Amino acid sequence: MDLKSLIRDIPDFPKPGILFRDITTLLRDAAGLRHAIDSLADKLDGAGLNAEYIVGIESRGFIIGAALAYKLGIGFIPVRKPGKLPSLVHSVEYELEYGMDKLEVHQDALQPGSRVLIVDDLIATGGTASATAKLVQQIGCELVGFGFIVELRDLAGRRNLPDVPIVALVEY
Amino acid sequence: MDLKSLIRDIPDFPKPGILFRDITTLLRDAAGLRHAIDSLADKLDGAGLNAEYIVGIESRGFIIGAALAYKLGIGFIPVRKPGKLPSLVHSVEYELEYGMDKLEVHQDALQPGSRVLIVDDLIATGGTASATAKLVQQIGCELVGFGFIVELRDLAGRRNLPDVPIVALVEY
Repeated sequence: MDLKSLIRDIPDFPKPGILFRDITTLLRDAAGLRHAIDSLADKLDGAGLNAEYIVGIESRGFIIGAALAYKLGIGFIPVRKPGKLPSLVHSVEYELEYGMDKLEVHQDALQPGSRVLIVDDLIATGGTASATAKLVQQIGCELVGFGFIVELRDLAGRRNLPDVPIVALVEY
Repeated sequence: MDLKSLIRDIPDFPKPGILFRDITTLLRDAAGLRHAIDSLADKLDGAGLNAEYIVGIESRGFIIGAALAYKLGIGFIPVRKPGKLPSLVHSVEYELEYGMDKLEVHQDALQPGSRVLIVDDLIATGGTASATAKLVQQIGCELVGFGFIVELRDLAGRRNLPDVPIVALVEY
């Protein structure tokens, strides 16, 4: 199945000069959604990652991560923007193009040694994925891999990630 | 399986006097997540809703809605806060306790006659679910039902929703 044909390009979003790869058209296609989640599961299983938890990054990572956690029969843990999680959190700050941002995870969601797979819809420069990796590694978790639907190869986000298996279904 | 035992109470979140029902503890439990999604699917299938699309409300509705769409083998469509969707949108305004808020859906995501199931993690007063219902009904979709993990019965949110089947797994 050609997943790329289900992803559309939106010029100048979220700002001029950016070509946005929009996966909402893939998600709304029943066969496309099914195939994307099954393919991620197959490739991640094939890599023998044996994850206990999927950590999904707010908020498109919730869509992919939750469906994948269901498919794999493992737990789902949200990583969220500041102030959204109701209980005590660990947090990580990271640099954006302009300024800083922060991500949080519940303190009791992960323990040292937990086997964690980080999932988002897309990897561009890898800033968010890298910050999420730091967050789970600070807790002492074993980061076993990353899963994405889309990878923007020109931005070389992989180079900012730890040396673990990285699965992406569609490359640009 | 006792899903309620996997949901925890957080007092005074997001503000003093509110008892927040936190489902992140359910989501991180592999058996709990599996059971919640399977139960929603069974009950919705049992009601013969025959939905073509799940419309999931940002952002905890993404978690439940995407896993459920995968399970049911149908498409997933996100309803988002303003400015998040990259293409042309339909929008709906709705009242909050203080002020107004807005939700958006891609114009080409739904057509008149599309059979839509609206999914969120929780129904309280029903303001967000009701606004989402208006949004899909304005497009001319057939709203076939609602699915929630948690329903806060005292807040009587059901009374604000159209007369279609409403499935909630856990009641308080």
